[in-house]
Amino acid sequence: MNGPLRIAIAQIDTLVGDADHNAERVIAHARRARDELGAHLVVFPELTLTGYPPEDLLLRPSMIRWCRDALERVRAEVDGIDVVLGLPWQDGAGLHNAAVVLRDGEVIARYAKMRLPNYAVFDEKRYFVAGRRPTVFECRGRRVGLTICEDIWDPEPARRAREAGAELLVNINASPFHRGKQQERIATLGQRVAETGLPIVYVNLVGGQDELVFDGRSIVMDAVGEVVWQGPAFAETLAVVEHPLPAGQAVHPETEQPPEREIYDALVLGVRDYVEKNGFPGALLGLSGGIDSALTLAIAVDAIGPERVEAVLMPSRYTAQMSIDDALAEAAALGVAHRTISIEPAFRAFLRMLEPAFTGLAPDTTEENIQARCRGIILMALSNKFGRLLLTTGNKSEMAVGYATLYGDMAGGYAPIKDVWKTLVYRLARYRNGIAPVIPERVLTRPPSAELAPNQKDSDTLPPYEVLDPILERFIEHDQSVEEIVAAGFDADTVKRVAIMVLRNEYKRRQAPPGVRITPRGFGKDRRYPITSGYHRYVRGH
Amino acid sequence: MNGPLRIAIAQIDTLVGDADHNAERVIAHARRARDELGAHLVVFPELTLTGYPPEDLLLRPSMIRWCRDALERVRAEVDGIDVVLGLPWQDGAGLHNAAVVLRDGEVIARYAKMRLPNYAVFDEKRYFVAGRRPTVFECRGRRVGLTICEDIWDPEPARRAREAGAELLVNINASPFHRGKQQERIATLGQRVAETGLPIVYVNLVGGQDELVFDGRSIVMDAVGEVVWQGPAFAETLAVVEHPLPAGQAVHPETEQPPEREIYDALVLGVRDYVEKNGFPGALLGLSGGIDSALTLAIAVDAIGPERVEAVLMPSRYTAQMSIDDALAEAAALGVAHRTISIEPAFRAFLRMLEPAFTGLAPDTTEENIQARCRGIILMALSNKFGRLLLTTGNKSEMAVGYATLYGDMAGGYAPIKDVWKTLVYRLARYRNGIAPVIPERVLTRPPSAELAPNQKDSDTLPPYEVLDPILERFIEHDQSVEEIVAAGFDADTVKRVAIMVLRNEYKRRQAPPGVRITPRGFGKDRRYPITSGYHRYVRGH
Repeated sequence: MNGPLRIAIAQIDTLVGDADHNAERVIAHARRARDELGAHLVVFPELTLTGYPPEDLLLRPSMIRWCRDALERVRAEVDGIDVVLGLPWQDGAGLHNAAVVLRDGEVIARYAKMRLPNYAVFDEKRYFVAGRRPTVFECRGRRVGLTICEDIWDPEPARRAREAGAELLVNINASPFHRGKQQERIATLGQRVAETGLPIVYVNLVGGQDELVFDGRSIVMDAVGEVVWQGPAFAETLAVVEHPLPAGQAVHPETEQPPEREIYDALVLGVRDYVEKNGFPGALLGLSGGIDSALTLAIAVDAIGPERVEAVLMPSRYTAQMSIDDALAEAAALGVAHRTISIEPAFRAFLRMLEPAFTGLAPDTTEENIQARCRGIILMALSNKFGRLLLTTGNKSEMAVGYATLYGDMAGGYAPIKDVWKTLVYRLARYRNGIAPVIPERVLTRPPSAELAPNQKDSDTLPPYEVLDPILERFIEHDQSVEEIVAAGFDADTVKRVAIMVLRNEYKRRQAPPGVRITPRGFGKDRRYPITSGYHRYVRGH
Repeated sequence: MNGPLRIAIAQIDTLVGDADHNAERVIAHARRARDELGAHLVVFPELTLTGYPPEDLLLRPSMIRWCRDALERVRAEVDGIDVVLGLPWQDGAGLHNAAVVLRDGEVIARYAKMRLPNYAVFDEKRYFVAGRRPTVFECRGRRVGLTICEDIWDPEPARRAREAGAELLVNINASPFHRGKQQERIATLGQRVAETGLPIVYVNLVGGQDELVFDGRSIVMDAVGEVVWQGPAFAETLAVVEHPLPAGQAVHPETEQPPEREIYDALVLGVRDYVEKNGFPGALLGLSGGIDSALTLAIAVDAIGPERVEAVLMPSRYTAQMSIDDALAEAAALGVAHRTISIEPAFRAFLRMLEPAFTGLAPDTTEENIQARCRGIILMALSNKFGRLLLTTGNKSEMAVGYATLYGDMAGGYAPIKDVWKTLVYRLARYRNGIAPVIPERVLTRPPSAELAPNQKDSDTLPPYEVLDPILERFIEHDQSVEEIVAAGFDADTVKRVAIMVLRNEYKRRQAPPGVRITPRGFGKDRRYPITSGYHRYVRGH
């Protein structure tokens, strides 16, 4: 036989909806894999040509045609190496989530994904019909079985590829990140290896796409279930592996890392790709002196550099001097330009304008919201005038219970920490300070406050975050009932009050900007709740 | 035999997520059907106990348990009549979208929906596994075949029910309205009757649920394909029909009506149910003197009555006296309270506050947006203080091209006309004026303007709506490509510019409030587009 098969893993960052751009990247990477790495085969992520997820662009016949045309370009412009790439493919049975193998101007094999995920953030049954047949192609005398993403989470597609003669499985992916996801992937691949005895080359997408971040970390697992190669996290790579593997090459690249690191890196990549792929010259945000905006600022700076980020301080009569000092210290520590615009003139104007309507009525959250919305107007005006993306700074705990002002602090195009529980915000801030101190210690220890009323503290209205967050996680991410949460040791009245707050604030979340998903259930496409609902009656009554 | 079977059609308005409430309504209607109508069988809409669509409430085990408990209540409290109702049902195969038949405390039959829609606004494959077997039960010697909604849009489930012995099909539905939907339903039922020779009792849900409106209009079609009974549109009913039908009873209740009527009625019911089911004491809106807010005001008044609606005039330096006069005339014609709050003090305050940042820069849309956002703050302050729902007044043409200000005129909880093209706004206004004149003629003939800059007109920025709307409808509702739209006679540059505006403004729509869907593709769950996308490059290049 011809010696080992050299397989290049192209862990790239595609752009959703731009088949020409993605085809150009395929061509460039394929040529590099051939010329620089001496690869015989190069493997790209799932739906390479559309990016992932293309969503309803898949319903446009022109999108499908564009992918065919882009495939033609790749076919015509690459030779001397086999190319595995993904694209939507229409045949008599319908539209498939497909992989094709190109060799010297010919499509030598085609595979249609058998398992279509239609849960969590996935809607693949909305677009695709499932494939029914395994595909095995030969490359330099080696028989390679093709599978696509979800296929590998089920025993059958891998088993059928082996029955069809595969000696090696290639699995192309667009597998989004959430905390701990890589461990799940490695365990699952281990099961498939145990069942089939076949090594697996698992190639994942990398990059941010609206609420999703794909973390890369492609995996090569040998026939005894060892991870022998792993791609970098949150970065592109083009690397080559051999089949069969040379003896003694098993490595364990996944060194033990703090869980904060992968989450922080996911947030940074999510923000960077949102800014870059949408063509923003930079970003801005309101810096309050609190922990949420401090962390968001650090993420933004790590994503796109301090010179492209602007911090805006917007004090009011309720802002403590300490908050201003801390905000200025954060901007200085990160090297970010800042400006200060007091909201008082506009706040006073609104109070006067509304005086006739509000005569005799006590101040309430209405007046708090006006302050937050004055800040929203200032930030949006700066965003409109200078073209920078406005980042919102709300965390998942706030989003969950509605402790945020629509069109106020919720105003903005992207919400970096909207899937980060408040207790995790603190952990991430400490993690970031461990790299270099950018957030004053006092910000991490002061009681959190929205500073919208005299001496206000979050704990006036909400349970302590150490109590609130685990209740929210159980109710939202694990669908636990009030009874189950109470049985885990939480106070029944608190649990009911929190659950009802979550249900009642669906209307706010519906109008929130997208942000990076880092949990198995964010407030995005993976949580689809009615606004109009009587379910809170169940919570109240049980 | 025992004479004809008397079937009661319970076309009711359920509340999503409240199984107890829905069970109570089932019990009350079943007793009335038995006692007042002498019915032997009463049929309720699809997923009666959860309402439709329950969305991710279905992922909560407690929701499924609650439905079981609610079913127990119905079982225990109704006798002397067979009850067909819908609920989610868990068995060994998974969760089903099911129908059960109750008789005197027993579940005598159960059916699992065979065809699960997973397109447009539907996500049923996210929750349910498909049933595989027909269900036929006997009631007073008549063999009734059960089907659920989507089942009837495909030949197989009806055919299999007939093969299993059915002499009559009952089809329970949660079929949302869009323009012309009833004609589609009647044509489809006609096909099933032609294939099976069986009469069909089609029972539909009625009511508004977030973006969806269910129009009722339940149908009884006889064995030769004649509509012999039709339920009212956009209203509840409990009525009885007989099987076999008495001779000579064929009727044609669907008299020819202007298409504007069903759309207007859908908008009214959507607003009413959103207000009532969410417990708002009333609604308010900004009344500009333009056609959009005039129509929205009329809809709101027709939905909940003039005494629960408030109009707010918010003039600026750019507001024409004519606009104020027309707005006052509209409020007076509809008997609605109004107040006037000039935005000038706040607008001037923001311009001064931003002067240092904007020195040397020409005014642009930034300053226009500040005005719209000052209005948003005033309206939201009134909404917060008095608890009334803020209605936004933007139409579908504006939503499509982004001719609206985020957190400005887009601020609000519900958007009654967000799925209504501007040209249809005019038609609906004329239709409403035909009932009683509530919108001054001048409002229908003036060139539309946002009045955010001197002598501004929509046509400064946008093509005339008579050109814009058909381009948008083709691009958005029919997924046509630029080439196809140009081939239909539109200017290529205009089509490209419009298409790119649509694609570029996805971020605004993502933060828009829900509103009534009246077309086959609204800007809601039935159009899922990426924000980050390079697809506009295809539009530009082709």
